[in-house]
This record gives sequence, structure tokens and C-alpha cells, in this order.
Amino acid sequence: MQLAVIGLGRMGANIGRRLMRGGHQIVGFDRNQPNVDELAGEGATGASSLEDVVANLASPKIVWVMLPAGDPTEQTIQALIGLLSDGDIIIDGGNSFYRDDIRRSKDCAAKGIHYVDVGTSGGVWGLERGFCMMIGASDDAFTTLDPVFDCLAPGYGTVTRTKGRNPNDTAPERGYLHAGPPGSGHFVKMVHNGIEYGLMQAYAEGFDVMKSRSGNKYVPEDERFDLNLTDIAEVWRRGSVISSWLLDLQASALAGDQMLEKFSGKVADSGEGHWTINAAMEQGTPVNVLAASLFARYRSRTDGTFGDKLLSAMRFGFGGHVEMPQ
Amino acid sequence: MQLAVIGLGRMGANIGRRLMRGGHQIVGFDRNQPNVDELAGEGATGASSLEDVVANLASPKIVWVMLPAGDPTEQTIQALIGLLSDGDIIIDGGNSFYRDDIRRSKDCAAKGIHYVDVGTSGGVWGLERGFCMMIGASDDAFTTLDPVFDCLAPGYGTVTRTKGRNPNDTAPERGYLHAGPPGSGHFVKMVHNGIEYGLMQAYAEGFDVMKSRSGNKYVPEDERFDLNLTDIAEVWRRGSVISSWLLDLQASALAGDQMLEKFSGKVADSGEGHWTINAAMEQGTPVNVLAASLFARYRSRTDGTFGDKLLSAMRFGFGGHVEMPQ
Amino acid sequence: MQLAVIGLGRMGANIGRRLMRGGHQIVGFDRNQPNVDELAGEGATGASSLEDVVANLASPKIVWVMLPAGDPTEQTIQALIGLLSDGDIIIDGGNSFYRDDIRRSKDCAAKGIHYVDVGTSGGVWGLERGFCMMIGASDDAFTTLDPVFDCLAPGYGTVTRTKGRNPNDTAPERGYLHAGPPGSGHFVKMVHNGIEYGLMQAYAEGFDVMKSRSGNKYVPEDERFDLNLTDIAEVWRRGSVISSWLLDLQASALAGDQMLEKFSGKVADSGEGHWTINAAMEQGTPVNVLAASLFARYRSRTDGTFGDKLLSAMRFGFGGHVEMPQ
Amino acid sequence: MQLAVIGLGRMGANIGRRLMRGGHQIVGFDRNQPNVDELAGEGATGASSLEDVVANLASPKIVWVMLPAGDPTEQTIQALIGLLSDGDIIIDGGNSFYRDDIRRSKDCAAKGIHYVDVGTSGGVWGLERGFCMMIGASDDAFTTLDPVFDCLAPGYGTVTRTKGRNPNDTAPERGYLHAGPPGSGHFVKMVHNGIEYGLMQAYAEGFDVMKSRSGNKYVPEDERFDLNLTDIAEVWRRGSVISSWLLDLQASALAGDQMLEKFSGKVADSGEGHWTINAAMEQGTPVNVLAASLFARYRSRTDGTFGDKLLSAMRFGFGGHVEMPQ
Repeated sequence: MQLAVIGLGRMGANIGRRLMRGGHQIVGFDRNQPNVDELAGEGATGASSLEDVVANLASPKIVWVMLPAGDPTEQTIQALIGLLSDGDIIIDGGNSFYRDDIRRSKDCAAKGIHYVDVGTSGGVWGLERGFCMMIGASDDAFTTLDPVFDCLAPGYGTVTRTKGRNPNDTAPERGYLHAGPPGSGHFVKMVHNGIEYGLMQAYAEGFDVMKSRSGNKYVPEDERFDLNLTDIAEVWRRGSVISSWLLDLQASALAGDQMLEKFSGKVADSGEGHWTINAAMEQGTPVNVLAASLFARYRSRTDGTFGDKLLSAMRFGFGGHVEMPQ
Repeated sequence: MQLAVIGLGRMGANIGRRLMRGGHQIVGFDRNQPNVDELAGEGATGASSLEDVVANLASPKIVWVMLPAGDPTEQTIQALIGLLSDGDIIIDGGNSFYRDDIRRSKDCAAKGIHYVDVGTSGGVWGLERGFCMMIGASDDAFTTLDPVFDCLAPGYGTVTRTKGRNPNDTAPERGYLHAGPPGSGHFVKMVHNGIEYGLMQAYAEGFDVMKSRSGNKYVPEDERFDLNLTDIAEVWRRGSVISSWLLDLQASALAGDQMLEKFSGKVADSGEGHWTINAAMEQGTPVNVLAASLFARYRSRTDGTFGDKLLSAMRFGFGGHVEMPQ
Repeated sequence: MQLAVIGLGRMGANIGRRLMRGGHQIVGFDRNQPNVDELAGEGATGASSLEDVVANLASPKIVWVMLPAGDPTEQTIQALIGLLSDGDIIIDGGNSFYRDDIRRSKDCAAKGIHYVDVGTSGGVWGLERGFCMMIGASDDAFTTLDPVFDCLAPGYGTVTRTKGRNPNDTAPERGYLHAGPPGSGHFVKMVHNGIEYGLMQAYAEGFDVMKSRSGNKYVPEDERFDLNLTDIAEVWRRGSVISSWLLDLQASALAGDQMLEKFSGKVADSGEGHWTINAAMEQGTPVNVLAASLFARYRSRTDGTFGDKLLSAMRFGFGGHVEMPQ
Repeated sequence: MQLAVIGLGRMGANIGRRLMRGGHQIVGFDRNQPNVDELAGEGATGASSLEDVVANLASPKIVWVMLPAGDPTEQTIQALIGLLSDGDIIIDGGNSFYRDDIRRSKDCAAKGIHYVDVGTSGGVWGLERGFCMMIGASDDAFTTLDPVFDCLAPGYGTVTRTKGRNPNDTAPERGYLHAGPPGSGHFVKMVHNGIEYGLMQAYAEGFDVMKSRSGNKYVPEDERFDLNLTDIAEVWRRGSVISSWLLDLQASALAGDQMLEKFSGKVADSGEGHWTINAAMEQGTPVNVLAASLFARYRSRTDGTFGDKLLSAMRFGFGGHVEMPQ
């Protein structure tokens, strides 16, 4: 098939590459010309503007937008709605908020354009491993794009098949999912990231317990184990209940730098964790672990809180406890 | 009545003082002689040793131990068990772990000695406000000591009477409670402190939300309220749902120092919060707020965690996100 | 002064009553005529429509809107903007979201109307105790309305004065606060409610620990204290660190019904807790306790979660643990 | 090598089997004779008592105890200490508390016996996948037992090798780890389980958010996605950041029963989560996620809490909110 990719950063370029390797034709555009040139050098048709993108596509025209969420994505999609027509397809492959997808899909529908949102996981590893995709789309649009998703997805790979699955629905086993109507793809991806935060924090807390044991003056001397965290992460990769890809990454990072000294410990969050908590609160669903995971990141980015000082002030007030700087 | 107070630090001395003001005779002992002299100067009988304490008391001999929990309390009580006899009473007024009380009460019972544990709240304010007491004791021992507790307790004070209370049980309305058998007094006091941690952290978080709003670059400019926290604490003291004694203390601290600059923000915990979580886990009772309150204090005492670095390492691993020190 | 109150439910009617007792003239309107008649019977001028409200007021016209947040408040305020003019004042005394206040204040400003948001705490007790008010307003509007707020507020009352306060700013000591520009009043009230949730949950968990101890098969027999929760709530009211108005309410409820059997245990939330978490997330402020308190209410309203079943399914998968219904 | 396995339940029998397959000689004992007969039928030497076990072993005698933690393990090990002598080895392969290991290792050392604690993960899958082992032992004992651990462990398997590892330490890459002195093996295994609880709860909460979205009356109609959770678990197994063995188990459970109707949702905990929180509190390490995960299980086992009723009672007290059973 022929399709355009707009936004040729790391993710967008790799999507283009993987599709070209699979025999698809790519029209590439990026406001940064060297990015266009690079992909053109690998066989893509370079475009010089959104208008040029559209001019280079046969109908039905398919455009995959792979830009930062927020203004860049919004403006590009609104411009494309003006340039495309009945039967064409716009794909938002970025990290948009699902409510924006629903709104845009209505804007598109007014012109007969299909709107498709694709949440992708796999990040920088996607070119090699394939992209795990959660897709919100009409049935028609999903069917049309099936060869594209099939090409981008990891496929069955070496992952053991799950027993008892419906043999008529193999897309999830090959790494892509038609989640539901527009918005649902990014919704599932959002929850995926919310879970990701929780998994990461569970490991982080466990490793903290082990790390802090060494030389800890509050525990008896014969309980102050001096544990090799690098080896612990490694051993858990084989046969333990908590083996995971995130654990693989930890083992890898610790093998190179047991003290993780090159990291500041100020941990960013990308928004999806926040949105997941919001969605949960709108529904009335308790999410203690997901929220605590997000808050741990906020806390990591501050050197101390006013609230902590207020605790000290109260302690001083009722008990004369002195917690002053030295 | 006549009774001894062992341990004449701030709390013990004030207990002795309040009892003397109420007409009771006090025998005082402390390993720090000036503390003994000071209380003797106010009318107490000074004692020079535990043996001397016991020699100065008429039977049934009553000894109130007011020492730091742990070894000092344990050793003193074990020594007293050796010195006292059938019908005498040992009171542990400190912050002992309830399980230690139960064990000691059995040691005492073997010699016919009554063991009484008294959890007290009110701290440095007790001399003035009276001590709120939660008491574990046999019915006999509680009845014997009733005049002592009545004298130490705050009394009805200016607190509005609660409608519908059992008119035959006014001790709780006067500020002391026979909680149950030995151990139950410190158990109730332990839970009191667990709740205290939760209340404090709730205020701390709320004030943090308000403090961090000022100049916060992540929110729209017209939402960056520059709030006067001193006045907010004050206004909530009058008629709001969240008025409390802890809020009074906050208002007082903030009135003197709106930035709370004299506090380090490294917040200690005294053990009872920890014990409360333990007790809850033994029972299978969920205590998310109490635990999060305790953990916030742990976090306040560290400058950053290894777990946070591990999060950054994972983020680098799957997304190439760079969170390195500058 | 003369002002109108729109919305004569329990809160609005009591605001009108307290103002009339303080010598102010009230024009009252409610779409439910008996509510109007009742207040008119107590001396208010009854109005039959918003237009009639406005016609009955002298300039500058002041209208206090006391309606449910959301559509009722929004529609009424938008209608009033059409009816009022330069120099008039609209007060939203309900529980609006602060962002809505900021938006509406701009709508008002375009016509020279002052918009004032007043968060009130004290609920059903306000007529008697006075209303604790957090106010977002321009300096001019606040100054104009000062006599109104002064009348509604609790005043100094019997609350001990805080030492060291600025003697020129006594409004907070009398129970009302000029928090800042429009929106800030409801923002502070929102955080107040967030804190309220946290305080309530801290007590709830502590009482749960005590309640579950009785007869608990997981703890040794001599630790299964059978505690009188009614008396414990009562004793803590006198001299303890955790005395508070919320504790007074608990003591009162427990005095009437120690088992609290008339309550379902399905606990609602009014939105402000949710908004507080949202605000905290927008800022990047950790609020573990406030969030856990909200989630506990969500959990109370469900009989069991799918997630719990998923845990059992995993346990069955890796360990053969069987957790099936009987 | 020759060694005895005491306790031939599922885990113990499989350990014996895997060792025999690897060429080791096994002496088996279980108080349930059919278990002994079954393993004897597969080539083991059946023993009739602990004395008989010891009599059947050549020196240095090695005994692997695979019994439930608590009394069965304790009594067996104490009996073995009486029967064994200098240079012999006792292995506790169960789920003992690490502090018990340290105590027992001292009892053993007094007689020259080596004590080794082995935490194993892998459960019912161990015979097939191999057992992931975390081992507390002296260097000598670990070296002696290396062939045993090597045989039981999963080996390199198909797991991708981690780059940059120390080439002299391959045991962790083959699935077993010498964590440190006695106690450290079970300590690491305890933390492993604490992490496991956190990972499980993160997935559970994420799936709850998705499950509760369907038909949720609090969200707009076009956001009430009706998601196929079976397919979502499956798609995440391929290329997503949150792929893991626990996710494999979820995909498998959901493939067989999308509603998980055969599970009650009352989730047990085995103690290690509790111990991990305890260890963290002793050290002063914050573990919000691990604790919240444990508390979610406690909450799943109760139909409602007294604390929830207390919340309702307070809400009734300050706002007249009625939350009564219908």
C-alpha cells in the first residue's frame, strides 16, 4: 500500500522504514528537511509540505501523523482535514489524549474522512521488535489498514502461544488490536502507560528495600545484607514470577552501572499516568497503586516539601520536638 | 493518695505537679538528681533509689513509671517487680508497645502486683490542659486509681457535652478511659498516634497544593494564586469542618513564620505509627492513609532514592529518555 | 445593606436569615415558591423571577447565587450577566469549580460587573455557628461586601486567639478570608474539602483497626481487645492531640448508635476531592493521602472489583492457589 | 551428589525429580507415606523417619527441607540439628522468615552444621521451567552445593543474554544467586514477593479502569468503550513495555474465561508482602505501592468496613448527607 508519514523523528522514521521493508510505498514529510532527505535516501518519496504530501498520494489517501501530542498534532490534523476528502484516512499515531481523538473523529466524519488513533508501545525498539499497537477505528478503516498494521506489528515472534484463544482473531497474537471506535486506541494505550508506572514503581520500591538494607543502622548487624542488585535483577529474569521486559531493562542498566550514578533520580512523567488517574476518578475506580506511582515521581523532582516543614511545625507545637536545619 | 513518680523529665515532673496541686502526695525519683531536687522543692518527697522509693510508700504501694520506652522502662519495671509485693500497683505511663505490657502484666500477676498501662496524649500542654489518658488495667486497679486519673485528666472543661451519652460513664467525658485489660491502654494510644500521623499528613498535603500553586509554571497564569497560608489556617479555625487542635498549632506556627524557615522538613516518627501499621497487617485491616503518612516521613528524611534512579534507568532503556544530573 | 439571595434551599435560606438578623435587607428568589414564601414570612422581599430580583434591588445591585454547582449555577449567572450592569456584583456562594469562576469573572468583567466566589464551610450548622468563608474577589468588591461577610461569619467566638498575628488583618480571625482574585475562594474551599477527606479517612482507618481487633482470629487471644469505640471517641475530645470538630461528630454519632447500623457504608463524594487531586496533578504535587481517601470511598461503593478476580487468576496461574466462590 | 528431600508435596517432589533427572541420588521422606512411595517408584530411596533419612546419607550429609513455613519447618530443622554433625548441611527451601533463618543458622553453627536458606520462585512450573533460586549460605556451603543448584535452576534458556555482565559470575544468568550469608536468600525472596504484589496490583487496577469504562454512567456515552480485555492482555504480550510472565498468565486466564467468573475476588496473601512492609518500616524505606497492593487484598476479603460507616456518619453530621441502607 501507499501511505504518507508526517513527522520523521525517531518514531516516525522507523515506522516508515519498517513499512518500506515490508514492501509499502512511503511519502515522507517533516518540517526538518534533513529528516526528509534521510528517509528519501532509503526509498521514500520526500514531500515539501502537507499539500505536497496529499498531491503525492493516490485515493483513498492515507496519512499517518507521528508528531508530539498537543499543538503539533492538532494543527496538522486540522490542516489535513481541509486537504483530504471523502474516503481518505487520517491516522494519529502519537500520544494524544483520547478525548481529543473523539472530537477530531467527529470533525473528520463531517467530511467523510476516517479518523484512526493508534497507541504504540515499544518505543526506540520498535524498528527491531515491531510496534505493539492499540487501534481505535471504524471497522472499515481498520480492515483497509490491516496490511499496514500487520507489517508494523511484531508478529507471533518467539512468544509462546496462549492456549484457548479464539482462532478467528489472531491480530492480538501478532501484536495489534482493534480496540473499538476512535479514541479507544489511545485510551487503551493510556491505561497501558498507567500500568507501566505502577510496575516500574513496584520494582523501584523493592530494590530500595534491598539497597537500604546495606549498612542500615536501624536493623541488627547480622540483617544488614550487602546485596548485589545487578545479580538479583539478573537471576529474577530466569524462571521467577516477576520476570518481565522492564526487568530485562533493569538488569541491563545495572550490569553497566551498579550504582546508576549517571541518573539524577529526578523522574519525569509523560502525561498518560496523570490521564489514567483522571479517567479512573471520572469513573469512580480506585487506583491506589497507579496514583502512588505517579506521586513518587512528583516527589522525586522536589528537594523537600512545605508540607514536611508543616509536619515539623506541628510536632514542635504539641511535643516540643525540634527538627531544625543544622 | 500517695504515689511515686519515677522519671522526672518534662512529662513525669508535670504529672507529679498536677497531682500535688490536686492534693496527692508524691515521692519522686530520677537518676538525674537536680530533677529530684526541683520537684522536692515544690513539695514532693525526694527519693535516692528505687529501694528508697519503695521504702517511702505505704501499702498498697503505687508507682508511676514515666520513662522512655524500651530499656529504661523495661529495666525499671523488672526491678520494681522484685521490690514490690502482693496488692501493689505499677503504672507504665510511657509509650510502651502494647505487647510488652501484656508480657509484663503476667510477670506482675505472678507476684500479685497489678500492672496498669496508661497512654497519655497532650504532651507539653498536659500540666495546663490536663492529660488525656487511655488506660489498660484490671477493674480493681482502675477503681483504686480513679482519684489519680480524675486529678490528671482535663475534666469536662469548656468542651460541649455530647448528647445521648450513657450518664453512668462520665470518665471519658472528663478525659480518661478504662480501655480494657493491661495492654489495651497503650494499644488505643498507639492507634491515636497512627490517626495523628494521618491527620497531619492530610493538612500537609493540602497546604502543599496551595503553596505550590503560587508561580507554578504548569498551570495557566490566572490560576497561579498567591495564597496567604497563615490566614487560611486561621480562617479554617472558625466554623470550618476541618477545625482541630492540630490546625490551631499550624495557625500558630504560620503566624510566627509564614515560610516555616526554621524547620528542616526532615520529619521523625516515634514508632507508634509503625506499630499501628504492623497491628493492622496482623489483623488484615487496610490502612492506606496511615501507611502513606508514615512513608511520607521516611521520604522526607532522604535526599533521593535509589529506586528513583532505577525508574530513570528504565525510562532510558525503553524510550531513550535522558534524566542525568547536570 | 440590601442584597438578593437566589436559591433558598437550606443553605441559601440560612444565609438570608443570618443576614436579616444582622440588619440587612434580603430579596429572595427560588423556583420553588414555598421557599420564597417562607423567607418572605420572616421579613424578606419575595421575588418571582430573576428580572423581578433585579427590579427590586437598588444600584449597585448585589446578588448572592446559592444553587447547586453545574448547570443551575451556570445558567443563573449567565442570565444575571444579561440583566445586571456596570458596578453590580454577582456572588457565587455554591461549590463551583474554580476554573468556571475564572471564566465567568471574565464574562462579568466585560460588562463591568464584579464576580465574587465564596466557598463556605459549616454546612447545616452555619445559621447557628456562622459560615466560614473563603472569598475570591477584586479588592473593591471585597471591601464593598465586607459588612455582609462580617455578618455571616462566626466571629471571634470562643476560639482562643492565635498569638503573633498581624493586628491589621482580623477578618480571618472572625472567620472570613479574602483569598485573592476570582476563583481563589473556591480553590481554597476545594483544598479544604480535599483535606477534609483525608482527615475523615485517617479517623476511619484508626477506628477500623480498633474495631477489627475484637475477636480477631489472627492475633493472640490476649490481644483481642474488645474496645468501646464510643468512649474512645469521647475521651479523645479532651486534651488529646487529635481532638477536632470531626471527632466531635464521631463521638456524637457513636453515642447514639455504637454499631452505626443505620449507615450503609457506601460513601459518596461531592467532587471537590476529585478536583483537588486534579489540581495537584496539574501542578506536580504529591497527594498520596488525599488520593487514597478518595479511592477508599470509590471502593466502598462497589461490592468487589474485576481487578481482584484478576489477582486470583494470576495466583491460580503461578501457584495453583484456588480462590473460587463457594 | 546424594541428598535428602524432606517434604514431598508438589514442590518437594518436583525438586527431587529434577535432581534425579540430573543424575543426583535422592533420599525422600514425607510423613504421608504415599508421597514417599511415589518418589521411590521414580528412583528415590524412601525413608521412614528423620533418623532413617540420616542413616541413608553418606557424609557430609545434605538435607533439603521443603515444608510449610512455621512449625513444620522449625520442628524438623531442630530435630535435624540433633541428628546431624560437623560438616553436614541443612537447606531450608521453604518460605521461612529471614530472621528465623539467622537464628537457626546460629543454632547450626554451634554444632558445625551449615545452614542454607533457599528462596525459590517458579512454583508449580519449576519442574518444567526450572527453579529460580535466591540462596543464603556461607561461601563453603554454596560451593559444595553448586552442582545441586545448577541442576535445579532454569539455565540460560532462551532468555536473551544481558550485555556487559561480569563473565566470571554466570550463576545469576543460569537462574541461581548466592545472595549472601544465611537469611539473605529468604530476604531477597521476600522482597521478590513484595514486588510481585505490586506488579499484580498495577495490572489489576489498569484492567479495572478498562472494565469499568464499559457502560459507565459517569462518563459521556462516546467514551464508554466496551473493551475486549482478553485481546488487550494478549496484544500487550508482543512488543509492549509491560510484557511479563504475569501478563502471560493473565492472557491465559482471560482466554479461558473473559469474565473470570470462577474466581471469588477474595484474594489471600502469603505473608511475604506483610514481611516486606515490616522490613521497609524497620529501615525507614517508603513503600507506598507495595503497601497499597497488600491492603487491596485485605479490602477484597471484607464486605465493607466500619470505617466506611463512620465516614457516612460524619457526612450526616456536618452536611445532613444520608447514606443509609435501602
